[in-house]
Amino acid sequence: MPSDSALTGQTAGEVLAGYLHHQSTEFLRSLRAHRDSGPDAEGTREAARHLRSASRRIGGALHTFRPLTDEKWADHLRGELAWLSGTLAREHASTARLDRLMAALQRLTGAAPPDQSDPGEAAAILSAGAARAGALLERQITLARTRAHSAALQALGSSRFHAVADAVAVLASEAPLTAAADQPATEVLPPLAEQAHRRLAEAVAALPLARAGHPYNADALTSDSRQDAPWHQVRLLARLSRYAQEVTDPDDADPRLDEAGHALERHRDAAEAAAAAAAAARTPRIAPATAYALGVLHADQRHEVEAARFVFGRVWLPGQPS
Amino acid sequence: MPSDSALTGQTAGEVLAGYLHHQSTEFLRSLRAHRDSGPDAEGTREAARHLRSASRRIGGALHTFRPLTDEKWADHLRGELAWLSGTLAREHASTARLDRLMAALQRLTGAAPPDQSDPGEAAAILSAGAARAGALLERQITLARTRAHSAALQALGSSRFHAVADAVAVLASEAPLTAAADQPATEVLPPLAEQAHRRLAEAVAALPLARAGHPYNADALTSDSRQDAPWHQVRLLARLSRYAQEVTDPDDADPRLDEAGHALERHRDAAEAAAAAAAAARTPRIAPATAYALGVLHADQRHEVEAARFVFGRVWLPGQPS
Repeated sequence: MPSDSALTGQTAGEVLAGYLHHQSTEFLRSLRAHRDSGPDAEGTREAARHLRSASRRIGGALHTFRPLTDEKWADHLRGELAWLSGTLAREHASTARLDRLMAALQRLTGAAPPDQSDPGEAAAILSAGAARAGALLERQITLARTRAHSAALQALGSSRFHAVADAVAVLASEAPLTAAADQPATEVLPPLAEQAHRRLAEAVAALPLARAGHPYNADALTSDSRQDAPWHQVRLLARLSRYAQEVTDPDDADPRLDEAGHALERHRDAAEAAAAAAAAARTPRIAPATAYALGVLHADQRHEVEAARFVFGRVWLPGQPS
Repeated sequence: MPSDSALTGQTAGEVLAGYLHHQSTEFLRSLRAHRDSGPDAEGTREAARHLRSASRRIGGALHTFRPLTDEKWADHLRGELAWLSGTLAREHASTARLDRLMAALQRLTGAAPPDQSDPGEAAAILSAGAARAGALLERQITLARTRAHSAALQALGSSRFHAVADAVAVLASEAPLTAAADQPATEVLPPLAEQAHRRLAEAVAALPLARAGHPYNADALTSDSRQDAPWHQVRLLARLSRYAQEVTDPDDADPRLDEAGHALERHRDAAEAAAAAAAAARTPRIAPATAYALGVLHADQRHEVEAARFVFGRVWLPGQPS
């Protein structure tokens, strides 16, 4: 249970409005930074990251504390913020995916010690294909990234985006609250946050954690992306739970939620990287050695998916026998 | 330390000769069974397995307790027994390798639940290539097995083999012992067995066990077969250690040695299966989807190599934090 110290003496509306105010200020600040960053690619990326972070947090607070705001207005804004952060996330995801796949290819092929000359047949065929596989992935993912970049720029210049920015600006001054928001924060907010925590706990309870806790169970290698869905859902619920905690208990973040979230981000990244390797392998007329390297890469990333599940289980259920 | 109860009151030579007598009787019995098995393939396999087992044990005892027998004679016989068991092992290894690879392909492609129709892109390309990869591996490994079968039959009919069988028959009646064998078993045998255990412990100490004890370290995925060698060496030393224990302490087998040995056999089998997948991927003119499936299969088996190292570490160092 969160300590209620941060809530004492305030209405629920005051606490929620304070959080929304802070996040909308962040949103507007990072929007300006994004516009002002000009040719500074690193600055642009950083601003986009903050913009996404604030968008997700505003959307999360509106979701978890939905009874305290005008629901129709909140639901619409949440949808628009999800569109915005999703659009901005794609370019970042492409960059991260390419980095991840290149690092994996490097790791898979570059580990031969320099003092020995015969790397064996397996290494020979892999290194023959890895360079071409890397070039193919780079072409395909760079193209996707360029498209995502254009889409993000277009979104940020659209009237749809300006309407979102206007709505967020309203949050900075006054959030449209309901009568329920006039009640004491200690009475209203913890039960709503608790619902978010409970939804997370229920979703985690449905995961095959006992199985994932056995190292090398090879479950994630079956190339069946459908089994990833409940894990992705838990990632979203863990984020909502963390944001709810930021509202009710800002000074006492649960490190377990953070660690669990990181494990599930790694899970998502590895699953998407594996899918990118599989997609590249369907490119017409590639050489068998290229396809072979992509197969190794695919399995390697699915192995990372399995490892991320194992780590999540360890974080969530510490002290379980291994 | 082994209990010396089984040794008390006997000379070292009596104990060693008893062990060699028992194993050479097994050798000759399984040789007859092999000749008499005719069209009974299962009976032939079983007889070959016993023949290899007895050969390895005689060779192991001659190695560990080398000062107790005529060394020149023992060294020659050991070499011939290694040739024999190696020749017999190849057919068995081909069968096991094909079974392992087919089971892995089945596992990698057959896990989609029947109530869903879209297995995703990764599963689609994998199942497209898996059938052809399976057929290719089956052709190649069946050919290797047929060759190994012929070589084994040829070996068993050779004059070289008859000389080995004659030497083993001598062991059944009287092993050529040295004067050292006249000393009490309790004084002579345990220090020699201890040397075998120590050689094993030293080789294990040189393994990267701390690293292997971290699940999902991805060390074995680097396709570099040279890193497997020290693990293979430990497998051989663990076997020698186990056989030495059979001589000095026949009633008190160490289950840890057994389990460790099984983990290292799995390690060897997976490493060889991975190499077979890589070799198949070098077949000229295969389709990219076939090569892709072989890449996935290769990585899957290297993953099994990593898992076997993890299990070995757990068996060898129980109670280590994970």
